[in-house]
Amino acid sequence: MQLAEMNWCQVAALSKDTPWVFPVAAVEQHGHHLPVYTDSLLLGEIVRRVEFAMEDRIVIAPLQWLGNSDHHLDFPGTVSAAPRTYLDLLGGMVENALMHGFRRIVFLNGHGGNDVPGRQAVFEARQRHRQRSDLLLLFATYWHLADLAAADAATFRQSQMGHACEWETSMILRLNPRLVGKIDSLETVEHRGAFEPASRAWITKDITAKGHIGEPSAATAEKGEVLFRTFAEGAVRMLERVVAWDGRSWKG
Amino acid sequence: MQLAEMNWCQVAALSKDTPWVFPVAAVEQHGHHLPVYTDSLLLGEIVRRVEFAMEDRIVIAPLQWLGNSDHHLDFPGTVSAAPRTYLDLLGGMVENALMHGFRRIVFLNGHGGNDVPGRQAVFEARQRHRQRSDLLLLFATYWHLADLAAADAATFRQSQMGHACEWETSMILRLNPRLVGKIDSLETVEHRGAFEPASRAWITKDITAKGHIGEPSAATAEKGEVLFRTFAEGAVRMLERVVAWDGRSWKG
Amino acid sequence: MQLAEMNWCQVAALSKDTPWVFPVAAVEQHGHHLPVYTDSLLLGEIVRRVEFAMEDRIVIAPLQWLGNSDHHLDFPGTVSAAPRTYLDLLGGMVENALMHGFRRIVFLNGHGGNDVPGRQAVFEARQRHRQRSDLLLLFATYWHLADLAAADAATFRQSQMGHACEWETSMILRLNPRLVGKIDSLETVEHRGAFEPASRAWITKDITAKGHIGEPSAATAEKGEVLFRTFAEGAVRMLERVVAWDGRSWKG
Amino acid sequence: MQLAEMNWCQVAALSKDTPWVFPVAAVEQHGHHLPVYTDSLLLGEIVRRVEFAMEDRIVIAPLQWLGNSDHHLDFPGTVSAAPRTYLDLLGGMVENALMHGFRRIVFLNGHGGNDVPGRQAVFEARQRHRQRSDLLLLFATYWHLADLAAADAATFRQSQMGHACEWETSMILRLNPRLVGKIDSLETVEHRGAFEPASRAWITKDITAKGHIGEPSAATAEKGEVLFRTFAEGAVRMLERVVAWDGRSWKG
Amino acid sequence: MQLAEMNWCQVAALSKDTPWVFPVAAVEQHGHHLPVYTDSLLLGEIVRRVEFAMEDRIVIAPLQWLGNSDHHLDFPGTVSAAPRTYLDLLGGMVENALMHGFRRIVFLNGHGGNDVPGRQAVFEARQRHRQRSDLLLLFATYWHLADLAAADAATFRQSQMGHACEWETSMILRLNPRLVGKIDSLETVEHRGAFEPASRAWITKDITAKGHIGEPSAATAEKGEVLFRTFAEGAVRMLERVVAWDGRSWKG
Amino acid sequence: MQLAEMNWCQVAALSKDTPWVFPVAAVEQHGHHLPVYTDSLLLGEIVRRVEFAMEDRIVIAPLQWLGNSDHHLDFPGTVSAAPRTYLDLLGGMVENALMHGFRRIVFLNGHGGNDVPGRQAVFEARQRHRQRSDLLLLFATYWHLADLAAADAATFRQSQMGHACEWETSMILRLNPRLVGKIDSLETVEHRGAFEPASRAWITKDITAKGHIGEPSAATAEKGEVLFRTFAEGAVRMLERVVAWDGRSWKG
Repeated sequence: MQLAEMNWCQVAALSKDTPWVFPVAAVEQHGHHLPVYTDSLLLGEIVRRVEFAMEDRIVIAPLQWLGNSDHHLDFPGTVSAAPRTYLDLLGGMVENALMHGFRRIVFLNGHGGNDVPGRQAVFEARQRHRQRSDLLLLFATYWHLADLAAADAATFRQSQMGHACEWETSMILRLNPRLVGKIDSLETVEHRGAFEPASRAWITKDITAKGHIGEPSAATAEKGEVLFRTFAEGAVRMLERVVAWDGRSWKG
Repeated sequence: MQLAEMNWCQVAALSKDTPWVFPVAAVEQHGHHLPVYTDSLLLGEIVRRVEFAMEDRIVIAPLQWLGNSDHHLDFPGTVSAAPRTYLDLLGGMVENALMHGFRRIVFLNGHGGNDVPGRQAVFEARQRHRQRSDLLLLFATYWHLADLAAADAATFRQSQMGHACEWETSMILRLNPRLVGKIDSLETVEHRGAFEPASRAWITKDITAKGHIGEPSAATAEKGEVLFRTFAEGAVRMLERVVAWDGRSWKG
Repeated sequence: MQLAEMNWCQVAALSKDTPWVFPVAAVEQHGHHLPVYTDSLLLGEIVRRVEFAMEDRIVIAPLQWLGNSDHHLDFPGTVSAAPRTYLDLLGGMVENALMHGFRRIVFLNGHGGNDVPGRQAVFEARQRHRQRSDLLLLFATYWHLADLAAADAATFRQSQMGHACEWETSMILRLNPRLVGKIDSLETVEHRGAFEPASRAWITKDITAKGHIGEPSAATAEKGEVLFRTFAEGAVRMLERVVAWDGRSWKG
Repeated sequence: MQLAEMNWCQVAALSKDTPWVFPVAAVEQHGHHLPVYTDSLLLGEIVRRVEFAMEDRIVIAPLQWLGNSDHHLDFPGTVSAAPRTYLDLLGGMVENALMHGFRRIVFLNGHGGNDVPGRQAVFEARQRHRQRSDLLLLFATYWHLADLAAADAATFRQSQMGHACEWETSMILRLNPRLVGKIDSLETVEHRGAFEPASRAWITKDITAKGHIGEPSAATAEKGEVLFRTFAEGAVRMLERVVAWDGRSWKG
Repeated sequence: MQLAEMNWCQVAALSKDTPWVFPVAAVEQHGHHLPVYTDSLLLGEIVRRVEFAMEDRIVIAPLQWLGNSDHHLDFPGTVSAAPRTYLDLLGGMVENALMHGFRRIVFLNGHGGNDVPGRQAVFEARQRHRQRSDLLLLFATYWHLADLAAADAATFRQSQMGHACEWETSMILRLNPRLVGKIDSLETVEHRGAFEPASRAWITKDITAKGHIGEPSAATAEKGEVLFRTFAEGAVRMLERVVAWDGRSWKG
Repeated sequence: MQLAEMNWCQVAALSKDTPWVFPVAAVEQHGHHLPVYTDSLLLGEIVRRVEFAMEDRIVIAPLQWLGNSDHHLDFPGTVSAAPRTYLDLLGGMVENALMHGFRRIVFLNGHGGNDVPGRQAVFEARQRHRQRSDLLLLFATYWHLADLAAADAATFRQSQMGHACEWETSMILRLNPRLVGKIDSLETVEHRGAFEPASRAWITKDITAKGHIGEPSAATAEKGEVLFRTFAEGAVRMLERVVAWDGRSWKG
């Protein structure tokens, strides 16, 4: 169900065990060839497929396009919540759902930069409500929910998500090729820096001048469909576990 | 232009005098008969018409549906930023646009509850950048931008915006009647309390049990079209003045 | 009653229905011809007359002269709370009165710049105490409480409050002419900018070099007495409604 | 000079070496026998005498009556800034004076509870402006500025300031005996707890049920005059050193 | 070098390219059998070995034992910074090192709960100093810096770090067996919940009643030495890359 | 007892009346001749002696070396919490101990710069828990706990604590002479400025170029032993009063 189309009486009538899904993405530069709304477009399509599969077993809030993208701010068109504001924004959404009595709250994330603050935000929320034992607070980034490498290692040049990369470009090609600029001549940019597995703090221009990371020139619409299907299935599997949760235990 | 569809190079190529419009609305209860996304739907339609009229003279960011709606939180389905988070969220958007070099920043608002924090947020932003004399920071609520009463006093029962009222219900009827519940038997609820013109702080259930304020039973799709047209014209007039601004003066 | 002269036992003995009035004003530049304490002086006189009329039906806290005047900070002598500090300051006063058991809390305001943060502050306070249904939280700016135009349109050149203007200068002339500088040669400065009814964020020097807005050269002590009388009567009428309030309802 | 009576042009014309004095006090319970405005009344009288002595060598802001009095909040009538708000309020005043170009900023304090946050606030301000070497930021509590014991040990029962005590009651008796309730039967309450010189955190009702600390029954108006004279002289001596400061050195 | 033993002149004489290492750990419950200082003890030993290997090529600050352990607060003895305080604490340390002119700043972490806030903190720091291109800000958790599984899969029952587990218990046995309680009868507790790879927010008692996670009964002092050696070598390798960094590039 | 060596079950088994001691010090420049860890080393020795005397009558948390030392930040090697972070850090420690059920909480302080924020922090904590009457919250700086002057006035050149001075240098000489640089030629630096007893805000370089305040050249290891013994005895006396407290009263 889409929250957007419901009135408050319909929300009030839902089982409090209905999972409440907050899709969160970003508006930020995606290189010379993709629009700034890319992450939000892609997550929107994932959410559309998830909703089709889950029907009235979950309620889905409108997609929050304002993300944690300060690292991209040197590139015009990026709109980003400051780091602490983003923590407050996510934490506030948890409070809203709790106030309405819901207990299974899932952030479905479509932007890599949201991952750390998202986990920080649900950590903070769990501590604020530490006296409760009936809460399920999840933060899940869609491309972590499926093992693409296992399924399709032969197909893809990248083995993990980049930025405006083979994967994202493929999905936008599948969705709306009109929005994709020239990709043939775009060089491959590696994300992996010299200090992994230590986490190095970065801003985008430390790594890439054009704005993409990965191998966009390898993108095709066909790959895009594989990606959408794989990621949507992963999200559905996760949400089905949320629906099936016993309401108490750690093991599920 | 829609920012969402542009890539960063296209944004970088814009004149820094291009007005940057942030549409801001809400997701909150709208009575027994309208969906929680009402304010965002209505502003979305206003923005669609504005964009059609203004074309590439302005750039429009994606609509921010998360608003200042804590007063509605007793009604399930409301999703709202806490008051200070909302100030930070709006203030951060101003900073984003400034960082990209733009100087004419307009919040186009579609939710009454955003009005006071919105004016507070642009006040704060102006003070933060007090050394500058080339900024135009506006917060404009769409139904304040046109004198509906003068134009169509005979048509309407209400002379000002309510909540899930004659005006909003009419516009949703115009947009998507499938989303409107039964309105015939809904009583009229007056907003005006005993202490005006003093500002009394309220939560929604102080005033209304069902959630609407005003006279939804008087709504028609025809009125909805009049409202959309009038409000969109008002917004366009305002934005044309922004385009025409001399870049320095108070008088325009 | 003046809180300042009471001891705590006398406060403890008051009915919890006694309205608690917090006068709030400012210390900020008022042009070449008026002192920085102008807003506080004028509100002080209004409060004096209100207290005379209301006697022991209300309790009045000392006047808080520190206001939201950051927009005037380019002019020496302005002392102003930063925007968030001002919100905290007002919100804290509400908490103080609530802690002492009072339920009818009225900010009586004498500075235009306090209006938006004042309404934000009482909004925030109402949300913090949303479980209560017995609170009356008001923010009232004194010149909004009386319809001067209706009463005396012929007398006045201005139809609304400016800054160090016909109205304020007249009232200081009535109160203490020694504090008023030369006004004959002061030009008229219009406040209205090019973008109303959109709210444009400003700092004072955007509008006026000398610091006044309006028509101070039209001021007379006689007009000042009319203004004091009219505004004090408006405040008294509002406070009598507060006293008469039934303790529960929105309509009063 | 009183800032309140000056216009901004007069402030602008002052030497930037003019000391800027912010009197800060409190509104809080003062036992069964003194009004809540006691600290502000007393500081007001000190300031009046200081101004008489210093004339145009210093500029004095209006007295800020809102202090750090949360420890007294269990007693009705206390109005207090929350601890962090009070730090922000004081720090903001320093910023205001700095913005206007002044360099010698003195808080003249009349409330014991302001002492620790006041020193914290000037500490924070000095760190914020660490690149400067021309600042003099002082926080001074009036009864610390004179050695009363040395001068008049024979006269007084108390050797240090209490609360609504011999000293404060004497000064209010000197100022306005009408404001003083019955004191003959008030018992003596010692402040000194069991853990000094360790600082023990307290709220007032930990120590006193009536609200006073010290020996109010020993108060006389004659003692009050001695106290006012002694403390005002101490404040004047300190301010004369501020005027005489060489503008750079630690030693003065 | 240990910062603790240096005086400020010695620090001032260092090359600004010297890596500055902040060891960060925790004080929190570690089950029935290990002391609350376990994470700090273990990191202390890693740091000791790292210092021995790196000598004067790095400067090491004192170990900060106050960590992000609010999830353990239901177990007595845990001392933890609140989540936002911890972000501020880490961010402030970065600012300190930057203020002293250093550019290579490494948090060497010994507590799993510090990982997300640590990465958030260095992200925030990088954004604050986005104009710089000469910074290396790393957050590294020691057991991520070596591939123990590859080296010693046969030896260990666990393939990743738990809490008061085979690994940590082994290392404390190696360090100070006197501090280890009875471990034979401790059951194995799995960390992995039902929703991975989604991140589920948790407090410790969601997972374990005794407080350990993993298989402490498999611990031996011999394993402890293997772990210390492996992890210290991993940390040294990482720090040697920091020393060798060219001062500009992402690739190292 | 040292908290560090206890497991959570042992902490849970303690009487809730056991005093909980948080030693707090600093890492900051200490002149040309002492290491930055000086305050922490000295407090560590005091704590060691206190623990020896008090045995299992108190529980002592690990020493927190991160202090309020922003005033020393112009000297490399200083690591300091920003002022508000330090307040949060101390306040959070109080909350931790309260959460575990303890009621007698003592900060034992070894850095002058911690004194004002420490008193502010315990003040704030007492207000947060104002409904309780069973709390003992103390902030105690070790050199205030003994009257050295009375005991040994003949021995010492200084009558109060400086910084890297006769007293501190003597104690480091007693503890670890290897850490002390050349002291013979160090000049005497007076702390006392021109405005005492007013509190003047300062940064260290306002007062001293080398970084010490006081008379380090007078230091001897023998004096160091006297100081350690005197201060440790003072701390023990204070803590014995804490143990003996009746659990309710102000007088002890």
